[in-house]
Amino acid sequence: MSHPLLEKHRATLDGALNAIHTRGYWAAYNEMPSPKTYGETAADDGKKAFDAHLGRQFPLDQPGQTGWHGGEVSPYGIDLQVQYPVCEAEALIAAGQAAMADWQAAGAEGRAGICLEILDRLNRQSFELAHAVMMTTGQGWMMAFQAGAPHAQDRGLEAVAYAYREMKFVPGETVWEKPQGKNPPLVMKKHFEVVGRGVALVVGCGTFPTWNTYPGLFAALATGNAVIVKPHSNAILPAAITVRTIRAVLAENGIDPNLVSLCVAAKRETTQRLATHPAVKSVDFTGSNVFGQWLIDNARQAQVYAELAGVNNIVIDSTDAYKAMLRNLAFTLSLYSGQMCTTSQAILVPAGGIDTEDGPKSYDEVCADLAKAVQGFLAKPEVAHAVLGAIQSADTLSRIELASGGELGKVILASTRLENPEFPKAEVRTPVLLACDAADEKAYMEERFGPITFVVKVADTASAIALSERIVSTHGALTVGVYSTRAEVIDAMTAATWRAKVALSINLTGGVFVNQSAAFSDYHGTGGNPAANAAYADSAFVANRFRVVQRRYHV
Amino acid sequence: MSHPLLEKHRATLDGALNAIHTRGYWAAYNEMPSPKTYGETAADDGKKAFDAHLGRQFPLDQPGQTGWHGGEVSPYGIDLQVQYPVCEAEALIAAGQAAMADWQAAGAEGRAGICLEILDRLNRQSFELAHAVMMTTGQGWMMAFQAGAPHAQDRGLEAVAYAYREMKFVPGETVWEKPQGKNPPLVMKKHFEVVGRGVALVVGCGTFPTWNTYPGLFAALATGNAVIVKPHSNAILPAAITVRTIRAVLAENGIDPNLVSLCVAAKRETTQRLATHPAVKSVDFTGSNVFGQWLIDNARQAQVYAELAGVNNIVIDSTDAYKAMLRNLAFTLSLYSGQMCTTSQAILVPAGGIDTEDGPKSYDEVCADLAKAVQGFLAKPEVAHAVLGAIQSADTLSRIELASGGELGKVILASTRLENPEFPKAEVRTPVLLACDAADEKAYMEERFGPITFVVKVADTASAIALSERIVSTHGALTVGVYSTRAEVIDAMTAATWRAKVALSINLTGGVFVNQSAAFSDYHGTGGNPAANAAYADSAFVANRFRVVQRRYHV
Repeated sequence: MSHPLLEKHRATLDGALNAIHTRGYWAAYNEMPSPKTYGETAADDGKKAFDAHLGRQFPLDQPGQTGWHGGEVSPYGIDLQVQYPVCEAEALIAAGQAAMADWQAAGAEGRAGICLEILDRLNRQSFELAHAVMMTTGQGWMMAFQAGAPHAQDRGLEAVAYAYREMKFVPGETVWEKPQGKNPPLVMKKHFEVVGRGVALVVGCGTFPTWNTYPGLFAALATGNAVIVKPHSNAILPAAITVRTIRAVLAENGIDPNLVSLCVAAKRETTQRLATHPAVKSVDFTGSNVFGQWLIDNARQAQVYAELAGVNNIVIDSTDAYKAMLRNLAFTLSLYSGQMCTTSQAILVPAGGIDTEDGPKSYDEVCADLAKAVQGFLAKPEVAHAVLGAIQSADTLSRIELASGGELGKVILASTRLENPEFPKAEVRTPVLLACDAADEKAYMEERFGPITFVVKVADTASAIALSERIVSTHGALTVGVYSTRAEVIDAMTAATWRAKVALSINLTGGVFVNQSAAFSDYHGTGGNPAANAAYADSAFVANRFRVVQRRYHV
Repeated sequence: MSHPLLEKHRATLDGALNAIHTRGYWAAYNEMPSPKTYGETAADDGKKAFDAHLGRQFPLDQPGQTGWHGGEVSPYGIDLQVQYPVCEAEALIAAGQAAMADWQAAGAEGRAGICLEILDRLNRQSFELAHAVMMTTGQGWMMAFQAGAPHAQDRGLEAVAYAYREMKFVPGETVWEKPQGKNPPLVMKKHFEVVGRGVALVVGCGTFPTWNTYPGLFAALATGNAVIVKPHSNAILPAAITVRTIRAVLAENGIDPNLVSLCVAAKRETTQRLATHPAVKSVDFTGSNVFGQWLIDNARQAQVYAELAGVNNIVIDSTDAYKAMLRNLAFTLSLYSGQMCTTSQAILVPAGGIDTEDGPKSYDEVCADLAKAVQGFLAKPEVAHAVLGAIQSADTLSRIELASGGELGKVILASTRLENPEFPKAEVRTPVLLACDAADEKAYMEERFGPITFVVKVADTASAIALSERIVSTHGALTVGVYSTRAEVIDAMTAATWRAKVALSINLTGGVFVNQSAAFSDYHGTGGNPAANAAYADSAFVANRFRVVQRRYHV
């Protein structure tokens, strides 16, 4: 019952299965853009492949095509001008449904094998994908490469591993033999078929068009569903490249490529109609609370896996590595200009200040030192551009402007506009830091996506922990952190995160950052607070995407 | 990290874990009321324990008690007159929440061990529970014993096994060591805590107050949640006995017994308020489509696991065991007067009749022979009473009356009222069989709960299979069956059930019946059609009842 592609990629699958079991460090795809891994010409080839898309139509040979649509605006200011096929939603749904029977027949092994081949092929396109991610999202090059290609592929593989594990747990058949005392036993043969629920819709976001799309895409695909990928209107190219590769691998393996399609739509209503279509049985969504809540409220025929907004926060009680803590925070706040769903927005500091190895630091000193740390970290333009990237959306630019006006809090570090010599039209901004009081909840207690961080003055550490818990419980968060040298503070914060259900990073002062989540080891989101109703990835992320249909008869 | 009670019951848990993996025959609790298993005095003791409840208050020592409520009416006509504590919902919720921290600290092992001890203790109360189930639901004695006690306990154990398996898959901790080329690796210690989602509400039904309650109850409990059991207003006693035993075992093991409580409410609004309370994170429900849909629409803060109504159906194409088929069907239609969510309501027969080993049988002959088979099966009063039990509700009596009037179809077997010499006030009815045309969808295409079955005349076998698929897809079903000697018919029916997502029984002519579902082997429901959005039990039934909260720090 195995499949040639499963055998080809058996070591990768076994590695992933072991990794989700042990949750130690593991990666299938090299995060370094090394010629040794990717080939001596990979960097050039990838750049050329990306360039070849620009100013062109991107044909996908999908059914129901009615025209072309594009309009992506690069945060780096380059001309993209790619046109994508616009297809009727009904045609994509019907074609996806029609392709499902053969996909079901491929079985857990066949589906996993083909998914692994797809991921391998996407991995070989990592440079092309990285350029596409960078130029549509504004990420710096290294982040675009890592998060956009190998890390996204690892997250996809993780979802395949979970799906495979859960599906394989269901035996294909059994003989059920029930003793009947002195009479012959009752004997039945039973078969258990794993069937996908229907058409899956995967709605991408504008900042991480592959990293946040691959988990749902591969979870749905591996469990037997057709998938329609609806990318963010400004980050279509990475999704289009992905879908083209998937369709090619499907076709090579005798599966109708219409199992997976790209839905590019000029209007939000198209997405709404798709999401509420009776044939659509799951929706994976990353994005705003407004549309996410709309999906949860309206896409009632589907399982909705939503990653929404939150107010990530950090409690600082004390530290024995003050400078290292500030450096660590400066990197977190600067990386991709804070345009990550995991970036800390509120740093909760006791009004009486904190203890450090250099003696006590007042609240104002912490504010000033954090501002200095960010400034220092971004002092070299080449570092600044590599880390900050560019601002992805006009909305984020507006939020930076609003924050800079001082209405939300006292500006302790002003955002500045940087010129990127390589991309003169790029919108580059340094982070803005604000100081405010815990009572100013209107300021800091809603997500203000982008490089905007509040240093919130809280009565004391206990109040800070309580505030953190309340923020997470009521507004959600994907990450929280704590800095403390006292075990009882860490214990109290730990208990608070159990109640509020959020991942906790403790005393990060080195090369790991609160906004980073490593596939196979770190759960991204818990699914237990308002920021997300699912995690990448766990059993719950895959188990309800398929159903088991049994049949039984006497033998 | 083990627990003494887990070690005590290790063999039972291992057996259950093996059984859900192989899905062969297995049971932890003996379905025969044998003195060898249950003790020489068990039958008498159980009857006495049941009798001791009658006409009395049933104290549970729960918080927020405001009074007493009873009012159960026995379908057998005996006086029950048990009074149960009425407690404020807010008090039960707050007490449940307060008990959760210690329950979380018990860990997967401790929770599983205590759940296994609870099930063992409930098993020892099987006779008491059987009388309580029989007298509140109208089930015959043997069914009340089997489905009400050991089979329900097996379903509860099955849920514990799934929960344990999924929780144990999450490592408690790991060391994450990421190589950094020539630099020292990044090393982090990570902890992963399984936390329950909150308070679970389990809403029971009037016909199977333990069998349909234990899966959700034990799934929620084992995964770390507090549980409030809200029994059907006419089947409180089996739930009250269960909750009392759970509370006793919890207290013996140092867990606050308020972790699990009974909510008896005179008004539906109490249940509605409970189900929509922000602290209630899951609702398990068995019952009507109306209230089930209300829950799905309104209890949006919770995961809702709903088993609703459906139109179970059987396609008869041909058979080589005509009499055995009719006997098998007669039993299915008679058992507990068809008051099972798995009883067949529509039997689809080609207008041109069917082939049998005795030659062709016309549609009318099939109707007449099925009627004769039911009559013959119920000819002996002692068999009839043992199998039929009594009618559980006035609504079901009304439906039998309506069907008997002939408005829904031609009456091919009239329902009769039987006198039960042991219980003179019992409401006993034999099944009513109706003949109708496939076009009479209004008659047969809604659930008519009770001993009411339609023999539906369909153009041909292909139309019958298509109709079966449409019934399941649009109105839901927990079971379908097919009788055919032709492989292509069975294949077509199999494919139809994959699309409609319903369990299929093929050519049942012996001691297994389409309405029976065996724990550990048969999935009860698929969760993929309108009759139920979840199955007993699978990974999806447990995986989303807990969340994993991680913390990490450098070492």
